[in-house]
Amino acid sequence: MSNAPLKIGLGIIGFGTVGQGVWKHLAATRRNMEMRLGVKIELIGVCVRDPDKPRKVKIPRTQILTDPFALVQDPRVNIVCELMGGTTLARDITLHALRLGKSVISANKALICEHGMEIFAAVSQHGGQYFFEASVAGGIPVIKSLREGLVANCFSEIVGIINGTCNYLLSRMEKESLSYETALKDARRLGYVEADESLDLDGVDAYHKAVILAFLAHGKWVPRKNTLVEGIRNVTLEDIRRASDFGCKIKHLAVIHRDFSKGTMTLGVYPALIPLDSILARVDGVHNGISLTGDVVGTTTLVGRGAGQDATASAVIGDIVDAIRALKGAAFKFLTTEDLESYATLGSTARMATLEEILSRFYLRFSLRDKSGVSAEVYRILAEEGISVARVIQYEHAGTQRGTHTLSTYPVSEAAMERAVRKLRKLRSVLEPPLVLRILAPAS
Amino acid sequence: MSNAPLKIGLGIIGFGTVGQGVWKHLAATRRNMEMRLGVKIELIGVCVRDPDKPRKVKIPRTQILTDPFALVQDPRVNIVCELMGGTTLARDITLHALRLGKSVISANKALICEHGMEIFAAVSQHGGQYFFEASVAGGIPVIKSLREGLVANCFSEIVGIINGTCNYLLSRMEKESLSYETALKDARRLGYVEADESLDLDGVDAYHKAVILAFLAHGKWVPRKNTLVEGIRNVTLEDIRRASDFGCKIKHLAVIHRDFSKGTMTLGVYPALIPLDSILARVDGVHNGISLTGDVVGTTTLVGRGAGQDATASAVIGDIVDAIRALKGAAFKFLTTEDLESYATLGSTARMATLEEILSRFYLRFSLRDKSGVSAEVYRILAEEGISVARVIQYEHAGTQRGTHTLSTYPVSEAAMERAVRKLRKLRSVLEPPLVLRILAPAS
Repeated sequence: MSNAPLKIGLGIIGFGTVGQGVWKHLAATRRNMEMRLGVKIELIGVCVRDPDKPRKVKIPRTQILTDPFALVQDPRVNIVCELMGGTTLARDITLHALRLGKSVISANKALICEHGMEIFAAVSQHGGQYFFEASVAGGIPVIKSLREGLVANCFSEIVGIINGTCNYLLSRMEKESLSYETALKDARRLGYVEADESLDLDGVDAYHKAVILAFLAHGKWVPRKNTLVEGIRNVTLEDIRRASDFGCKIKHLAVIHRDFSKGTMTLGVYPALIPLDSILARVDGVHNGISLTGDVVGTTTLVGRGAGQDATASAVIGDIVDAIRALKGAAFKFLTTEDLESYATLGSTARMATLEEILSRFYLRFSLRDKSGVSAEVYRILAEEGISVARVIQYEHAGTQRGTHTLSTYPVSEAAMERAVRKLRKLRSVLEPPLVLRILAPAS
Repeated sequence: MSNAPLKIGLGIIGFGTVGQGVWKHLAATRRNMEMRLGVKIELIGVCVRDPDKPRKVKIPRTQILTDPFALVQDPRVNIVCELMGGTTLARDITLHALRLGKSVISANKALICEHGMEIFAAVSQHGGQYFFEASVAGGIPVIKSLREGLVANCFSEIVGIINGTCNYLLSRMEKESLSYETALKDARRLGYVEADESLDLDGVDAYHKAVILAFLAHGKWVPRKNTLVEGIRNVTLEDIRRASDFGCKIKHLAVIHRDFSKGTMTLGVYPALIPLDSILARVDGVHNGISLTGDVVGTTTLVGRGAGQDATASAVIGDIVDAIRALKGAAFKFLTTEDLESYATLGSTARMATLEEILSRFYLRFSLRDKSGVSAEVYRILAEEGISVARVIQYEHAGTQRGTHTLSTYPVSEAAMERAVRKLRKLRSVLEPPLVLRILAPAS
């Protein structure tokens, strides 16, 4: 098998922001993916309306095509990435590919919302596959979590911030006391609002995504008439301030609720007040966040980038890998020889950093005898090791003749800090071993 | 194929908290899983040391066995759940099962940390499978996200709260101004601390988990000597208060950092200060949270229950489903006929709730003409519809002869609120259409 790896041909329909992102990142990760999966991945071509339109991501002219059906029918193409958007031609192409038994990957929430039932039926009838992780919450693997990781659960509640534009607008209004109109003007300028603004501002985009989540959680395609769909146009800065008086933040949410005892469910998309101390209240800007409450696992919350070229490409590529694994069929196992070899290769490119190389900001707490010159000794030691102090809070303990110093440092190596602490411990005026904690700023 | 479904036999080794949880939830979800996967799942038996020990989850005496090797060798057993813990007998049983080409599912982080290289090699040599989602962060699908959903990424930074006990202690100290000793006493009473306390309190458990994450992200088994491993025994209430003065919280973190340009990586487990407004700072109590920063997707954060019978069972059952999918091999596709049928069955048990059935708390904002009796009219309408007001903030706009009222209600139906708003809009003293927002308290 490893002598003649399975060949996987990939066709991309649509070469806008997402299509270009997928091509760009695939080019970068293809070798690694091939090694891990034990296959050969060929980018057969990209289908566009206008081949001469200038694009940031350059591809050979021979791989730019204009007939999507021809690309889909190309016998070399096993996997079709439908990244063109829309619900008419995209539907025809998708169904055509599925009827040929091919695997289709999509980021098209409107298409799935409107024609999911027909598409899914075509998948099961013709033995193809359909993956759509990128259709909801961009780079966050929420569909995989619902379908796979959390598959043991029935979901009584799903609450999500799944429209980045609404979240961006509400965050800007709140943090900078902007009016809705001013925030909207900025969002437009930054290209954060869809051409058809109603999709974002009236909750339609969030509704599309919520319908997909509801189907995956509850097996029901929820028609629009059974839902509460509201946008954020009527939310004012005044409401945001008032919400804070009520201990809350206003977020545009998709809410899918299921009552298993009554046999009912609800789907709503609307701005709502949620408590300031909830995790979703911390999800600001264009980020998305989704809380899934299952009967076995409790609540799991996923937060990340819900849109944009790169995050969406990450989801599409994850789907491509899943599609390839399924295409390998019986030959695919978790932790195959190829898989282990790719880990070994990856691992061989990294060595453990030495303590001299690891930099961090530090928090330092030590107690000093209340004697003149004592602080000077301490700061001399820190200076010797090149440790710059950023902030100090010092206080005395009344009647004890000792004072506690806490300080934060600028970035310095672990080794330097270790040497400094060793010296500090030898000082008679330092009353107990100093406590050293690192200060981190995790990305979010 | 649907006429003679594949039979999948399951053996569970170890019947403590986790084993019993898996058995309990499997019994509840088995029919649904069978339908979805198009297989027949048989619980062959459970292996224990003492069959007569009283247990909360009751199973037929014939299914209680005492020889783990016999259970593993039983030709009916395809999937072995190793839930006994420990690193000696568990290692022997695991390797024995893998050499027979079986699928093994484990929650045993210490075993994987110490013998992962040997175990993984046995998987790839003998064509078995090994799944271990439950070994890190309990019910949170972080391993699946790393290996599958986010597979397009190289991870420059992984920061996680992955020891629930440390997080519980630090949260209690912070929120209730408790000393470390008092918080620890409570944690012991609640059974939150491992029998070998050092595993939790000195960071060893978090180190085991971090090693697994580091291997999955970077293909390197990091030896203990190359790491910074510290527990929380030296963190005092004073430090927690001081951290807050520095705009931070103290969390016990696992930090895996990789610098792709220098070719170095670091792995550390220690208490650290992180900014109050980071998402991880919101992860309190026994919860776990992990931020994964990838070069394509940016940062994705997963938060949820990191331990406990049910959350761990959720992860184990997710792994069982994955194992079955792979065992089905070429017959497994995403959205098979069986899959769609199970969605249809699931969907048939739910109907959309009517507006009379959907209850919510509401936020209401309306402007009133400044005239006596006006408020009385409004509150009469709310009362007519059975709407109880929880809190009111009312203020006047100087010189405008109008006042703005905002209020929150107790739970009431959507229909009642709709009727009330319709009536309010007809009042001449209500100056513009009232704004209605729902007030939610998402689980977290």
